[in-house]
Amino acid sequence: MPDLATPGLLAYQPIGDYETEAGGTILDITIAYQRWGTFQGDADTNNVILIEHALTGDTDAAEWWGGLIGPGKALDTERWCVICTNVIGGCSGTTGPASEHPDGGKWGSRFPATSIRDQVGVEKQFLDAIGINRVHAVIGGSMGGARTLEWAAMYPDALDAACVIAVSARASAWQIGIQSAQISAITRDPDWHGGDYYGVCEGPVTGLAAARRIAHLTYRGEMEIDERFGTTAQQGENPLGEFRDPSQRFAVDSYLDYQGRKLVERFDAGSYVALTEALNRHDVSRGRATLNQALYSIKVPTMVIGVDTDILYPFHQQEHLSRNLGNVLSMHKLVSPVGHDAFLTEDRQMDRLLRRFISLVNDGREPTDGFGHDPEGAWII
Amino acid sequence: MPDLATPGLLAYQPIGDYETEAGGTILDITIAYQRWGTFQGDADTNNVILIEHALTGDTDAAEWWGGLIGPGKALDTERWCVICTNVIGGCSGTTGPASEHPDGGKWGSRFPATSIRDQVGVEKQFLDAIGINRVHAVIGGSMGGARTLEWAAMYPDALDAACVIAVSARASAWQIGIQSAQISAITRDPDWHGGDYYGVCEGPVTGLAAARRIAHLTYRGEMEIDERFGTTAQQGENPLGEFRDPSQRFAVDSYLDYQGRKLVERFDAGSYVALTEALNRHDVSRGRATLNQALYSIKVPTMVIGVDTDILYPFHQQEHLSRNLGNVLSMHKLVSPVGHDAFLTEDRQMDRLLRRFISLVNDGREPTDGFGHDPEGAWII
Repeated sequence: MPDLATPGLLAYQPIGDYETEAGGTILDITIAYQRWGTFQGDADTNNVILIEHALTGDTDAAEWWGGLIGPGKALDTERWCVICTNVIGGCSGTTGPASEHPDGGKWGSRFPATSIRDQVGVEKQFLDAIGINRVHAVIGGSMGGARTLEWAAMYPDALDAACVIAVSARASAWQIGIQSAQISAITRDPDWHGGDYYGVCEGPVTGLAAARRIAHLTYRGEMEIDERFGTTAQQGENPLGEFRDPSQRFAVDSYLDYQGRKLVERFDAGSYVALTEALNRHDVSRGRATLNQALYSIKVPTMVIGVDTDILYPFHQQEHLSRNLGNVLSMHKLVSPVGHDAFLTEDRQMDRLLRRFISLVNDGREPTDGFGHDPEGAWII
Repeated sequence: MPDLATPGLLAYQPIGDYETEAGGTILDITIAYQRWGTFQGDADTNNVILIEHALTGDTDAAEWWGGLIGPGKALDTERWCVICTNVIGGCSGTTGPASEHPDGGKWGSRFPATSIRDQVGVEKQFLDAIGINRVHAVIGGSMGGARTLEWAAMYPDALDAACVIAVSARASAWQIGIQSAQISAITRDPDWHGGDYYGVCEGPVTGLAAARRIAHLTYRGEMEIDERFGTTAQQGENPLGEFRDPSQRFAVDSYLDYQGRKLVERFDAGSYVALTEALNRHDVSRGRATLNQALYSIKVPTMVIGVDTDILYPFHQQEHLSRNLGNVLSMHKLVSPVGHDAFLTEDRQMDRLLRRFISLVNDGREPTDGFGHDPEGAWII
């Protein structure tokens, strides 16, 4: 029986050192995590659902996926033990560039480059450390989807099923291009100091906000943003004056400034660079086979979900996954003007799909509302 | 009979002062232009086709649209007198931020903000100066499409027909967001000096390259970029090393660096900011009516062309134009993985469409190859 965190509270688990895919070493790692619901079963057969957060996400999945995780919800915490760890390289409790280095100071530029595979390898080490050999399901979107896919590829015996959302089999050149543009916005900020700004200054907050502005425009569909803002001027400002004036903005620019400020308050620029770099390295085929062979060799039952208006991970990339994965449970499209972020915002659709996922994984029946409480349900545990 | 430039050669036309839509004044403007083909007709009825270049375009339309402009081509210079001016605020001969101010020094930050309407108003003043009251057609894509649309809205009696390509009725919030991100990349560069870097330093070349990188990813479809580069490493570089290293790149990053360098060599950052700001201000409805009413009031026969994979000006924006313009000749979709830039690269499709445009405008018949030379053709002149 694993010794788990108090439900809902942030806990810290030391897991020792880790050698990255590229040969770097991260010493003395701590993993921050949260769990909800009661663990049932044993190390090999249990009710654990592992949630993989996206780039700037954190362990509080019951908050950022609040419509989907909780008592009676699609991921019903009266039935499932839901666990969410903060990714390696992150800044919400897990070891990352802003953490203390064992030799003193912050990791900063000493933090090695990590890949999506490293994120999963570290998380596997975490599960080993808390005494769980296999989980019931892994679910994640965006970077969390890439991690879910690598879970199925790297440790097929450690999960019963996977739900891969709004991601691709590998980074596309366009994704690398736009992601490197974000990294560059941060590293061009004079306050970056080669990644060693900790204790020197506040850090590259302007660059981080600029990166977030670019990123946000890839997360949000142009239709949704235009619905909200159009060409409206920010209240009290005139973006149509005689001279261009950055203090006189369109409403959308004020909104994007706000998104940048909000991120700066809660996220470390070093982590943003580290995790964006990991996304650049996402490639299920690396060192394995051709891309489609690598996908076909993944035999974990997998649900694939995409968004019709996603420009960051366009829907054809999820179609590609569903055509080539070795054991597809089903394939679904979120229909939404929101774009990539729809998996975080379209609760009604996601609720249906995650209930369907749970149902398909457990007895193959079609889901009904509240199905998780059906006394006839033939659950795996 | 207007006194026109020698065919193919860059010429300069002084047109006096101009007051902008927002109340600024640009003094002593020079317009750079090129023309191809022999002028036929008079000031009011003639064979002039005006080509409107895109943001970083220039007067040399027979170069950047080389497949479409020339003897026997879709825009047949044996029949048409093709004219292309450099836009106000540009840096290819027309007055812009890098030009000499009459009071000394460069215009720099003294250059007023311009709108798409100003671009057209200035070009009208240019036509007046060379003695042309009305042209046969105006054709343009992207920013050139916005200018073409405003030609039809502002001076309906000054053109027989318009061909509006890969643009929208107004800037969308997403476009404003991504365009402002580019402006900000330039103005955050310490070498921007508030727009007055001329004679002080080389200018914000790093910021301009960064802006171009972002822009390029909106001009090019993710499928086309991924076809070319995928996750391939740049030759001799290893983007998967133990530490992130900007000198060890994916091929796509090297390509985008190259695109940035190329632009820096040929384009002024002040012009880039000025013209991007003009795109932010694009709005056919401003001061006129509702957006759809403003479009409906445009009675100039207009062909609308879009690109299926355009993320900058998505195809639904051209569908919107075609549903609402007051006199649509026809509506067409370029099918291409290239995205927005397809109107510059898909010569075969554009050739068909521009021949069709010429045909529809002149006698309503369907085009045939080489139709321009059909002795039966009932041309307007």
